[in-house]
Amino acid sequence: MHNEAFALRLSNAIEQQDFEQAASQIETLRPIDTADILALINPTLAWQLLQRLPNRSTIFSYFDVDAQVAMALKLPREQMAKLVGEMPADERTDLYKSLDQEQRDALLPALAQAQREDIRRLAAYEERTAGALMTSDYATLSAQMTVNQALEALRLEAPDAETIYHAYVIDAARKLQGVVSLRVLILAAPEQLISDLMVNDPVSCNVNDDQEDVAKMVARYDLIALPIIDEMGALVGIVTHDDAMDVASDEATDDFHKSGGVSTMVGRLKDASITVLYRKRVFWLVFLIFGNLLSGFSIANFEEVIAANLVLVFFLPLLVDSGGNAGSQSATLMVRALATGDVVMRDWFSLLGREALVALLLGATMAVAVAAIGYVRGDAIVALVLALSMVSVVLIGSVIGMSLPFILNKLGFDPATASAPLITSISDASGVLIYLFIASKFLAIS
Amino acid sequence: MHNEAFALRLSNAIEQQDFEQAASQIETLRPIDTADILALINPTLAWQLLQRLPNRSTIFSYFDVDAQVAMALKLPREQMAKLVGEMPADERTDLYKSLDQEQRDALLPALAQAQREDIRRLAAYEERTAGALMTSDYATLSAQMTVNQALEALRLEAPDAETIYHAYVIDAARKLQGVVSLRVLILAAPEQLISDLMVNDPVSCNVNDDQEDVAKMVARYDLIALPIIDEMGALVGIVTHDDAMDVASDEATDDFHKSGGVSTMVGRLKDASITVLYRKRVFWLVFLIFGNLLSGFSIANFEEVIAANLVLVFFLPLLVDSGGNAGSQSATLMVRALATGDVVMRDWFSLLGREALVALLLGATMAVAVAAIGYVRGDAIVALVLALSMVSVVLIGSVIGMSLPFILNKLGFDPATASAPLITSISDASGVLIYLFIASKFLAIS
Repeated sequence: MHNEAFALRLSNAIEQQDFEQAASQIETLRPIDTADILALINPTLAWQLLQRLPNRSTIFSYFDVDAQVAMALKLPREQMAKLVGEMPADERTDLYKSLDQEQRDALLPALAQAQREDIRRLAAYEERTAGALMTSDYATLSAQMTVNQALEALRLEAPDAETIYHAYVIDAARKLQGVVSLRVLILAAPEQLISDLMVNDPVSCNVNDDQEDVAKMVARYDLIALPIIDEMGALVGIVTHDDAMDVASDEATDDFHKSGGVSTMVGRLKDASITVLYRKRVFWLVFLIFGNLLSGFSIANFEEVIAANLVLVFFLPLLVDSGGNAGSQSATLMVRALATGDVVMRDWFSLLGREALVALLLGATMAVAVAAIGYVRGDAIVALVLALSMVSVVLIGSVIGMSLPFILNKLGFDPATASAPLITSISDASGVLIYLFIASKFLAIS
Repeated sequence: MHNEAFALRLSNAIEQQDFEQAASQIETLRPIDTADILALINPTLAWQLLQRLPNRSTIFSYFDVDAQVAMALKLPREQMAKLVGEMPADERTDLYKSLDQEQRDALLPALAQAQREDIRRLAAYEERTAGALMTSDYATLSAQMTVNQALEALRLEAPDAETIYHAYVIDAARKLQGVVSLRVLILAAPEQLISDLMVNDPVSCNVNDDQEDVAKMVARYDLIALPIIDEMGALVGIVTHDDAMDVASDEATDDFHKSGGVSTMVGRLKDASITVLYRKRVFWLVFLIFGNLLSGFSIANFEEVIAANLVLVFFLPLLVDSGGNAGSQSATLMVRALATGDVVMRDWFSLLGREALVALLLGATMAVAVAAIGYVRGDAIVALVLALSMVSVVLIGSVIGMSLPFILNKLGFDPATASAPLITSISDASGVLIYLFIASKFLAIS
């Protein structure tokens, strides 16, 4: 309750128009922490304090987009335009995209023309691409500059650029020629030329690349920022390390959710409405009902052997689940390895052989355990049926679990989607079939 | 096969002692890409090329630790000491920790004394703490310096420091007083004092903090590097953004594996041996056998009602799985939300009410579907039994799935561990019990 109590004290101070006291309460906080507190206060009150803070646009940028919209709509048009104009270009575009047409029409004319064009350009890129993630606040240099001229240029660009630690060298057509770090610049002699210091042919991504590939590249090359170029090789933006880290975390959450049979959710669990939670879960639950009916039909085919040997039902959940469990284990390992780039398609064949061997060992271990219990509750034949079924069920489940993510990937689907629920349902049905088939061969029908 | 073909060409050039041609093949590559290629070549050959490259220690640092050890052991002692001495302090320590005692004893005396002490100090921190993750290659300033003096100091520290974009201001006792960014320094007047420019009371972590908390803090505050302090407040290291990003990705993989009933694995799936894969999977599979026996015992208690109504068996896998599926969905949402800090313990109660409502809606939807099928294969009473069972099973499964991660967290366990397998097994058993209990109330026994 710490933040809530803090927010209450703060809103009391603001209501009493005691802005000095209010400001002193938050002056030691970082912008993101201030944003978390202010988000708990009535937007009109919060704005009274926020507008007095020198770093108001930074704090405002840390609000959830919903909170940004809520506050922006309460402001007079010129104040809103000023605040939005001060935001970083990528955050500003995200806010713009959350407004409805009427709100956009109110905002745009109040902004400077360069900002209007910037918003239109950035908002045009598809969601989840490099273009939608990048910012246009970066620092550029030209190859003919000396170090002294470059440092002077960076001083001028510093107030607006998200980073000046990497500066991008472009020609007259904005084609990306190289990158030079501030570390190199301050170590170099003042009269050295940028063209002699820059790294040629720097790592870059295309503006239409998937944001996940952007994040992987930032991680692989330990970059502070990754330049983004268009089809002509012209520099159009950069993605900074912190935005890449957020993407990597969101993508991991997505994969995690999907593998648990939950569809992709935008936003935080705590804020999700009941309808959103219902919608994102109902599909797989109902789908799996039909998957399980397959198991039911297998059972219907073997009703006589079940009626004659009711002990089979005792072991049914166990055998069915074991195949599904082994399968979802293999799928779990594979989905994450595909996501982090650890394994690629051409590894499938070599991994399949190893997986079969591991599954045989696992199946044998489990067969020993289950046969012992089968012998106690049934007889030697029941034990044999259980052992044979267990080995087959675990083997089939694992091979399905290992192969399905690859197949989904090959077909162009995200391997995380539905792997686990699909695999559980397929291996459950195969498990029932194998178990009852083996039982019908060994056990008397009446 | 691109990398393999490249490596073959490269190793041919090295074997013919044509180092100029070999070097020209890799000169446009980044260090991590060069490392990936060289790792495919015989270590003795690879070293012949590597030792001629100016950035050899950077490339060597990108090798897997196993490949580093393999190559280091082939080198004469002085060459090994030189190479290891040039490595970044954190990577050097990781390598040292992978050596056996004899190898450590061979390495240590060949290093400079400062490096020896640095290794001993860094190697002493527990795995997965801030101390084990941090590097000691950081830049420091003192508060009394002018901007000009500070820039001069940073120029001297630049060759060794992992970053000079954030410099840490310490007093004579190395107590962390503030942080100043290079951006601020190059914008300031030459005679300004660091004490007037630095951010006081910077974000920091304790050396014993969990590495996951370190990564969360770097992400939350968008840091290039996070200072790490000891119990006395003295600066002992920094964790850079790229290392924090690697930790976040590894932790996401760990959680992903655990939620799929696979134990934590160190290293990449492709390189894992059959024994490792067997060991990390067998525990949960065998554990779940005993979980499933609970379901079996429930079934044994209701043998008469099953014998009299074999149609119940047809729907058994469906009802049992539905509870488990709904439960593992809730658990999936909860585990990831706990991992990213999206929800905290005190949210439990408010989330529980919402979860129950969502589960009732989901259960009702599924009840409609399953009752229709029950009516076709059985009669109206079977349909009623199925509908009632479905709603109860989904409700119980969801509540278990939502609560268990919280309880595990409260008890100090990692909520990702075993959540899904445990939940599946508990809700399966409750599902069987509820289903057969309801059936025994409505259906005739003979």
